[in-house]
Amino acid sequence: MRSFQICHLDEALRPKVQDRIDNLNKPKGSLGRLESLALQICLIQQTLTPSLHHPCHLLLGGDHGIEREGVSVSPREVTWQQMINFSKGGGGVNMFCRQHGFSLRLVDVGVDYDLSAVPGIIDRKIARGTENFLYGPAMTVAQFDQAIETGAALAEDCAAEGCRILSIGEMGIANTSPSSLWMSLLCRLPLADCIGAGAGLDTAGIRHKQEVLARSLARFQTLCPENDPVDIIRYFGGFEMVTAIGAMLRASELRLAVLVDGFIMTACALASCRLYPAARDYMIFGHCGDESGHRKMLEAMQAEPLLRLGLRLGEGTGALCAFPLVDSAVRMINEMNDFQHANITKYF
Amino acid sequence: MRSFQICHLDEALRPKVQDRIDNLNKPKGSLGRLESLALQICLIQQTLTPSLHHPCHLLLGGDHGIEREGVSVSPREVTWQQMINFSKGGGGVNMFCRQHGFSLRLVDVGVDYDLSAVPGIIDRKIARGTENFLYGPAMTVAQFDQAIETGAALAEDCAAEGCRILSIGEMGIANTSPSSLWMSLLCRLPLADCIGAGAGLDTAGIRHKQEVLARSLARFQTLCPENDPVDIIRYFGGFEMVTAIGAMLRASELRLAVLVDGFIMTACALASCRLYPAARDYMIFGHCGDESGHRKMLEAMQAEPLLRLGLRLGEGTGALCAFPLVDSAVRMINEMNDFQHANITKYF
Repeated sequence: MRSFQICHLDEALRPKVQDRIDNLNKPKGSLGRLESLALQICLIQQTLTPSLHHPCHLLLGGDHGIEREGVSVSPREVTWQQMINFSKGGGGVNMFCRQHGFSLRLVDVGVDYDLSAVPGIIDRKIARGTENFLYGPAMTVAQFDQAIETGAALAEDCAAEGCRILSIGEMGIANTSPSSLWMSLLCRLPLADCIGAGAGLDTAGIRHKQEVLARSLARFQTLCPENDPVDIIRYFGGFEMVTAIGAMLRASELRLAVLVDGFIMTACALASCRLYPAARDYMIFGHCGDESGHRKMLEAMQAEPLLRLGLRLGEGTGALCAFPLVDSAVRMINEMNDFQHANITKYF
Repeated sequence: MRSFQICHLDEALRPKVQDRIDNLNKPKGSLGRLESLALQICLIQQTLTPSLHHPCHLLLGGDHGIEREGVSVSPREVTWQQMINFSKGGGGVNMFCRQHGFSLRLVDVGVDYDLSAVPGIIDRKIARGTENFLYGPAMTVAQFDQAIETGAALAEDCAAEGCRILSIGEMGIANTSPSSLWMSLLCRLPLADCIGAGAGLDTAGIRHKQEVLARSLARFQTLCPENDPVDIIRYFGGFEMVTAIGAMLRASELRLAVLVDGFIMTACALASCRLYPAARDYMIFGHCGDESGHRKMLEAMQAEPLLRLGLRLGEGTGALCAFPLVDSAVRMINEMNDFQHANITKYF
């Protein structure tokens, strides 16, 4: 795996930014979470006049070998069907990208269907789905490296166009399963605490999913007793998930803000932070859903999500829905009057 | 007080709306809170293709006699200074109105300063601040009626321009005090559970505020032992608060959605519902802040706010910040493909 030069935020500017925020014409701290967001973005961009120019959303699609074990309520064909639907503008992700002015890139990194002729889908296919990790690693070392490189190149393209905030979403039937395994191993939490209903399993379905994942985990621990993060990520990961990690890491290296979506993208954020702890500084967490374990994973990263709306669609919709709040934070510091200019008695 | 014809939502359309939402190309229920929001707006507008045309924000300003007792950390002059600041576009409310495309009406209904010559401020002044309710009612019956009428007329003007969603905010130093008293009396909760730090009181300041409000409450209960909602509202209310009630009631009568802001506007929503329970059906609660008691007041109305961001600026900023989510809900039902049109295997 290539290396990334990701620096922790330079804190030297913090007092100046805080002073600017405290002198806006409002009681100190009264814009709550928007103030801490503004601070983070100013430090990421190292400026008192931040910008969210050209927001981009990567929608990464890939299939999963583990889907063959019946761990998902939806069949694998939904992945490619939805990719085509997105390419025509009819999905949830399209709607939110239009609403918030995001440039959407639909990328096939591992869908089990030939999408190469579909207009609007970028072809970066690594393979037609991963291998079934119940029996062995989901991908080879070469495929893992390719996914990381693919993600890094996608983030770089966005940055080259002037993008300052990158949002990432996924489409991949069964991808809560690898996410749960990453979470269990990377947070050292019991597997049962990390498994939920996905897109709608019933109690029997969840029990079956737990059994399949427990057997997969046992096999992995026999093969890779060192618990190395790269091994964990490669063994269970989907192509869309490892590509997302590559994109998150390169975006952090390029000092872009990274908007993190729900359970699956939070697992990718967690994996990114285990590889490069400084990547955490660039992340903004959009949404905490009801998927069991999502909250615990956020806690493990000391992340406070902006929204709790019970979304569980994926596609990056939780990240996109949170964007207007990030925009509000940036507008606050750029547009709001300070006490001196507004001729207002300073509140306290 | 005039009467309003506010009808509970006609539920006959509910199954059709629910069916439409359940057939959008996503797992059932996977857009969480956005789905229940979409349902509410469809029922308010009695249509499967709702619109949020021409959103309007009323920013109502007024001063409070009780401010003379030192119950607020900020001096009374901040009310008029901020109104002038808003008229120049430099406040938090201006920034969020610009961001979300709201038409902003700044209205002086009771500011203790002559703002009549300030461009951009609508003059509907009832008096230069209310009386001090420590010694008697904040306003007369005639003033109460005038405030209700003023609010109703403002909502009607918005509706006449085609507005389908009305947001209301306030600027009035010391107005957490009347809000706490309304809450205590209208929810029958101990006063201590209803009092918080306002815009930034310290412990001694909160204790003093509690003493002043407890004495005011005792005097009211001697004078008006019947606990009549109109008496409660008139005795403690600010002009901006009673005007907000008039606007909420007339907006509900006209079948507009009403976007409710933080602690003070939630108190106005509560008062509106005590007068006309059906008004609750038209309300969307934007934000739950940290002000002690706000959560309990929301619970009393079975209201689930969209955001929890620790905002305590007032001005309607909590309502405005929530607007993109309401917009998302409406876009979902208007723009998202259904399974049939998208050629996708229905998830379950």
